[in-house]
Amino acid sequence: MITPIEWLGTGVRFLDQTKLPLEVSTIDTDDFHVVAEAIRSLKLRGAPLIGVAAAYGVALAAVTSKTSTISECKKELSSIIDYFAETRPTAVNLFWSLNRLKSIVQSSSSVEKLRSAVVAEAIAIHREDAEMCEKIGKHGATLIPSTATILTHCNAGALATGGRGTAVGVITTAHEMGKKIHVFVDETRPLLQGARLTTWELQQAGIRHTLITDNTAAFLFQQHKIDLVIVGADRIAANGDAANKIGTYNLAVLAHYHNTPLYVAAPSSTIDQTIPSGSGIPIEERHAKEVTEGFGIRTAPAGIKVYSPAFDITPAILISGIITEKGIHRFPYNFQTTA
Amino acid sequence: MITPIEWLGTGVRFLDQTKLPLEVSTIDTDDFHVVAEAIRSLKLRGAPLIGVAAAYGVALAAVTSKTSTISECKKELSSIIDYFAETRPTAVNLFWSLNRLKSIVQSSSSVEKLRSAVVAEAIAIHREDAEMCEKIGKHGATLIPSTATILTHCNAGALATGGRGTAVGVITTAHEMGKKIHVFVDETRPLLQGARLTTWELQQAGIRHTLITDNTAAFLFQQHKIDLVIVGADRIAANGDAANKIGTYNLAVLAHYHNTPLYVAAPSSTIDQTIPSGSGIPIEERHAKEVTEGFGIRTAPAGIKVYSPAFDITPAILISGIITEKGIHRFPYNFQTTA
Repeated sequence: MITPIEWLGTGVRFLDQTKLPLEVSTIDTDDFHVVAEAIRSLKLRGAPLIGVAAAYGVALAAVTSKTSTISECKKELSSIIDYFAETRPTAVNLFWSLNRLKSIVQSSSSVEKLRSAVVAEAIAIHREDAEMCEKIGKHGATLIPSTATILTHCNAGALATGGRGTAVGVITTAHEMGKKIHVFVDETRPLLQGARLTTWELQQAGIRHTLITDNTAAFLFQQHKIDLVIVGADRIAANGDAANKIGTYNLAVLAHYHNTPLYVAAPSSTIDQTIPSGSGIPIEERHAKEVTEGFGIRTAPAGIKVYSPAFDITPAILISGIITEKGIHRFPYNFQTTA
Repeated sequence: MITPIEWLGTGVRFLDQTKLPLEVSTIDTDDFHVVAEAIRSLKLRGAPLIGVAAAYGVALAAVTSKTSTISECKKELSSIIDYFAETRPTAVNLFWSLNRLKSIVQSSSSVEKLRSAVVAEAIAIHREDAEMCEKIGKHGATLIPSTATILTHCNAGALATGGRGTAVGVITTAHEMGKKIHVFVDETRPLLQGARLTTWELQQAGIRHTLITDNTAAFLFQQHKIDLVIVGADRIAANGDAANKIGTYNLAVLAHYHNTPLYVAAPSSTIDQTIPSGSGIPIEERHAKEVTEGFGIRTAPAGIKVYSPAFDITPAILISGIITEKGIHRFPYNFQTTA
């Protein structure tokens, strides 16, 4: 069982995912700044996990707060919630989680009650995410043929969530049901979450897989080697447009051209009803160095210009189905009434 | 002026392209084995340049041959030509060039005549490639609007040819004509020829450019930021299907979906009239390590399976035009009569 983050009572333990797969290294801390830094530096990443981690970060702040009055404590925690909201811009699960905590903070009548309520809420967010993963896995597995070659991108597994993963959760569930699965894993430049994390998870789950460069996916489609694509999401607009790791829109065009289904698996916490379409989703830009000095060695001339968006937007019409804990949503997407 | 290989009279000097862009390092040799090894290990790469380099390799073998009779010399050189034919499987320019030398060897009447004829033929192959690049540049530049954002993949520049390049030659020619060009350069995993070589060439030519991961191209198309795509080719079948660096077919599907032209630029020596369609083109598979240890640092779990074809096939119907030294060929391709 892969556990990317754990609540220890008055602290958290989390896996430093930037060190995987070479090193399985955990960090114990009771300092919320360490958790925020871990989110910013991608030691903790994956949209649902960012939500869980930020919740635990605020819980740590509540537990370690030195304020003595409830009004001081509320003020301090509100500012810490705002501080966590600044860590990453795209994954909406972060804001969804922080909003839940904000309500708890605001409705607390004493410092002691606030502490225990915030901790309980963070633990609930984690547990609920695990439960949503279970349900996503079960709904999604119904879409997987008894023998299937599946393409996935980036990492939407246990390392990205509070449970068994979204896209990888579906794959794992289908595998446990006895379906014959082979997974092609896009390495996912620039930060290689596919090569580093998804292969590591599949290896542990005993699911057959092959690593490819992102450039190779199209050639596999052309050879009819992909039965379906399944990916996660960082934010889904009200119309079903989905932000996910850069390269996902590429796969959606390829899947469409080759008449292959592409599914998005994500908990409801990834759906942002306040944004009507994908054009409203903020896209984080990453550092040039991740492209020019991938893993410490410079591979491009000094001083060149780099454009490195972390995410892209896949229009709803190219998504064959969005799998949430509530079921399988289909185009045209209306998350308030369907599934 | 970038000179990837030079004939020194009784030896060759070539750039070790695996060290670029960090180090501009040349190797002088009169040993044909060193040239063959350089082709195999991608110190010398790019379909037209492989043809030129192999020709010089055979010329070195002719110059340094210790055989005293013409029949021994013919036998030795035939076997060295076969040895060069084994270096890389996909680029047809290699076989085209070696066939020219084979004819010269077979028709020579003395060791001395063979030597001078083989050297002269190798120099001619190099000069003709440079001339073909010039003409490709001029024909191709007519396709470039006066202000254009161009996407290219891998390296089809001076470093890949005996002249100013094919795809990059078109870009450079358009730039010299005063057209306002901005180039998006795909980094081109696994070996990053875009990040390492094309950016280096464009930097020296003073042409504005931005490096992107291969995953980013689709997002640029979606934002209408690409006016046209231009790439080279390693082998073109009689029907116009084109083998080129893995990821090219991906761009062809993206360009088609976004109503954007994609051009292939290559000398006639890249056209293989003996192969009716792309399915007959052999595709080289590369080592897993280039994917799992791409930056000298292992980034994937030990023991995983990798699939890494070096090239893919773009069907003729997705190619808006094939630019050779003879002009611009259009679908349906018939290289014997058109342009």
